[in-house]
Amino acid sequence: MAPLTLARLAELAGAALPTPPPASAPRIERAASLGEADAAAVSFYSHPRHRDALRRTRAGAVLLPAAAAADCPAVPLVCDDPHLAMARVLQALHPPAPVAHFVHPDAAVDPAAALAEPVRVEAGCVIGAGCAIGAGSALGAHCVLGEGVALGADCRLHPRVTLLPGARLGDRVEVWPGAVLGADGFGYAEQDRAWLKLRHRGGLVVGDDCEIGANTTIDRGMLDDTVIGRGVKIDNQVQIAHNVRIGDHTAIAGCAGIAGSARIGRHCRIGGGAGVQGHVELADGVIITGMSKAAQSLRRPGAYSSGTAVQDNAGWLRNAARFKRLDDIVRALRRGDRP
Amino acid sequence: MAPLTLARLAELAGAALPTPPPASAPRIERAASLGEADAAAVSFYSHPRHRDALRRTRAGAVLLPAAAAADCPAVPLVCDDPHLAMARVLQALHPPAPVAHFVHPDAAVDPAAALAEPVRVEAGCVIGAGCAIGAGSALGAHCVLGEGVALGADCRLHPRVTLLPGARLGDRVEVWPGAVLGADGFGYAEQDRAWLKLRHRGGLVVGDDCEIGANTTIDRGMLDDTVIGRGVKIDNQVQIAHNVRIGDHTAIAGCAGIAGSARIGRHCRIGGGAGVQGHVELADGVIITGMSKAAQSLRRPGAYSSGTAVQDNAGWLRNAARFKRLDDIVRALRRGDRP
Amino acid sequence: MAPLTLARLAELAGAALPTPPPASAPRIERAASLGEADAAAVSFYSHPRHRDALRRTRAGAVLLPAAAAADCPAVPLVCDDPHLAMARVLQALHPPAPVAHFVHPDAAVDPAAALAEPVRVEAGCVIGAGCAIGAGSALGAHCVLGEGVALGADCRLHPRVTLLPGARLGDRVEVWPGAVLGADGFGYAEQDRAWLKLRHRGGLVVGDDCEIGANTTIDRGMLDDTVIGRGVKIDNQVQIAHNVRIGDHTAIAGCAGIAGSARIGRHCRIGGGAGVQGHVELADGVIITGMSKAAQSLRRPGAYSSGTAVQDNAGWLRNAARFKRLDDIVRALRRGDRP
Repeated sequence: MAPLTLARLAELAGAALPTPPPASAPRIERAASLGEADAAAVSFYSHPRHRDALRRTRAGAVLLPAAAAADCPAVPLVCDDPHLAMARVLQALHPPAPVAHFVHPDAAVDPAAALAEPVRVEAGCVIGAGCAIGAGSALGAHCVLGEGVALGADCRLHPRVTLLPGARLGDRVEVWPGAVLGADGFGYAEQDRAWLKLRHRGGLVVGDDCEIGANTTIDRGMLDDTVIGRGVKIDNQVQIAHNVRIGDHTAIAGCAGIAGSARIGRHCRIGGGAGVQGHVELADGVIITGMSKAAQSLRRPGAYSSGTAVQDNAGWLRNAARFKRLDDIVRALRRGDRP
Repeated sequence: MAPLTLARLAELAGAALPTPPPASAPRIERAASLGEADAAAVSFYSHPRHRDALRRTRAGAVLLPAAAAADCPAVPLVCDDPHLAMARVLQALHPPAPVAHFVHPDAAVDPAAALAEPVRVEAGCVIGAGCAIGAGSALGAHCVLGEGVALGADCRLHPRVTLLPGARLGDRVEVWPGAVLGADGFGYAEQDRAWLKLRHRGGLVVGDDCEIGANTTIDRGMLDDTVIGRGVKIDNQVQIAHNVRIGDHTAIAGCAGIAGSARIGRHCRIGGGAGVQGHVELADGVIITGMSKAAQSLRRPGAYSSGTAVQDNAGWLRNAARFKRLDDIVRALRRGDRP
Repeated sequence: MAPLTLARLAELAGAALPTPPPASAPRIERAASLGEADAAAVSFYSHPRHRDALRRTRAGAVLLPAAAAADCPAVPLVCDDPHLAMARVLQALHPPAPVAHFVHPDAAVDPAAALAEPVRVEAGCVIGAGCAIGAGSALGAHCVLGEGVALGADCRLHPRVTLLPGARLGDRVEVWPGAVLGADGFGYAEQDRAWLKLRHRGGLVVGDDCEIGANTTIDRGMLDDTVIGRGVKIDNQVQIAHNVRIGDHTAIAGCAGIAGSARIGRHCRIGGGAGVQGHVELADGVIITGMSKAAQSLRRPGAYSSGTAVQDNAGWLRNAARFKRLDDIVRALRRGDRP
């Protein structure tokens, strides 16, 4: 990338240059943490835990709130949300590479697939009949697209993504390696004390501007579709079951699991390792904290939790033993007995 | 598929036609949900939450219990278990494609592998020396089978399944993308404050009619085998450690984890995100609810849980703080003191 | 392998032969469990739950503590830690195969990658520009290495490992199928009620002698590196987020999740399905029990837990209902009221 002037950097970040501007202004070539930055780097400060690192930084410029400017030995670039400002700077410093049309000779593309131009298809990709891939999309090595998969424009599949029949992705969707989109859901009926599989015929619809993490799995619906809204961000190793519906701009952190037919609203945040039970409905703006289990519908926005707090194991064992009798204890107390 | 008459459909589903049969009987071409079905579709009704959808459906026929027939504007097909009936219909409408013998020229099949006929091997598969694949089995793109892997008849490996040395699968096993069967278990001994690996030599035996979900991992045993019984159904992102034994017809939902040497009975159900501790034994018919942890052996059938119920975060914080002192509180009460 | 004399076996295992040595000493060809072993096999005994199996074993020799020798019908090989002794024996019986230089003709190796000799590169591997692979390393089928990835000497990548740009692995690192190392972390800023991605530029550094399980994901850092120390052992389906730092010789069991910027000390043990919250710090020697959540920093070594103990579901429901009001109950008791 070409170096940025401080003025251009401030403009991109939505930050204010000092007045008057510094006499010898650095040109910025990269972003780095406070600890690692040098004079050609911009850094950011957004939490008091980094106060010492701010005071010692050798960065050329630092994105920070006004209150921290006095502690900054570099050029302060004052903004309301330094984290957001850094996101903008990183987008500007590292734009996605433009896609030139290229299909690797070792890719197996069915003649009945429709590839717009330009698209990039790396080595080992397998693209089935009836697939449609929009212009500007890039597929990393070893992606496998089953029959009839649809991919919008400007998508980016990292290597080794699997899209199974029934998957339809919007524009600007980014998917990380190992993700499996469109497998059959976990649906069986009991017959003669064995499980009879419900073959799945529904689709999986992923909206524009979603990002899906490494080794995440999202199943197709049984009869109706599984639906992921627009701008939904899904971390690594998340499991989303058949017929789930997720509203726009919801974020789901790593290792969370969403069981079948759950409905999650817009602008929700599901913490790492959290679970949402089948058929549960979460209102817009619900936050489930990490490793909590939403086993019932939650109709109002706000944060919800389950579980207990961590403590030393010996103390925990004693408390957990009491929990197993908690109802008996309370009943005894209500009777006026000692527990 | 060829359209089905109502009479044939009812026979397949184990359902009863109305008496007398409808004058103008639709022919059924597909299955669909109550909301999406049209006159050529069969749907099903199995829960009161769908009562309104039943009343408004445009389906040609609906599988339902007798008590709901009065609410059904379509031809009612009365049966005891509409969910099971729909499973049968989906099996009939979407039978697995017959396998014609085909080995893709881009597959790397070791000359010392034994492939029955017919089998289907898609692009990019790698099949090691000493592998045996039964007749009627189909391997999707990019499956990797290590040395000596055995696969029974009529198996279906979706794309990108990895079977490592020591894995032996029965007949009619279906495995979804990203599953890794037969990795070494997580076993180390401590030596000089570092970990010395226990190289694993046991196998992984998977019984007939199992289904294994996307990105699920099942490790080989250390010396003895890891054993998955017949008809076991395993969802996505399940982790099953070395030397686990799972009884026939047990079902394990997404993101569950079974630690080393656990023994799970037959007809058990392990909920999503649940855990079973190492060396624990679960009797036949045990149900572990979602995200619960079976940290001890459970000798009787029935449902078991751990954790707490979800609530608003502010209230949870107060309760969790009390839990950390629960034993002290009960001791104080027993002494006759206030807590 | 060549059979081992008992004397050589005892030496390898660090165990003592009986005095006087047995008249007709078996030669050992393999390791097996007490139940499966025959006269040419060595087994081990390390837990009273296997006492009956010890008494009935047909093994040629058994590694065991002195106190169990009287129950052993085979040649007893007495040692302090039979589990460690067996690890040594398995290492000796099954040394890693030597690597002869071989690059499969179907591998796509960029001309600007630097492969030391010997290395082994199996079918379907894709190795990008600027990669460096150390001598003695072996890559299984379908491994994908993005631009600039560095791999030390004597590494073993099993099939279908993905190393993305920014990943740098030390010597003797073993990685199992489906692992994805170096994906972007889950970092976004909120802008106009949508998520703006923070493009990640930090690296992922994995120390010497680490082992990384199947379908595990470890993200690169945002600006600084994610750092995994030396000798760290990571099981299957573990998720390690951006900018985490893990100290030497820590072990992390299956399905655990470590959130962003957490710092875990040396010689820690993280149980299966456990979670460590973002930015939390764990001291050296901390143990988190299975499925517990370390939501705060823990400054002293020792074991920590959260959650409750498993019990029958009906009883659990009653207790969980009380937990939701636990603070109210304690407040009532403090006032001298009944709860």
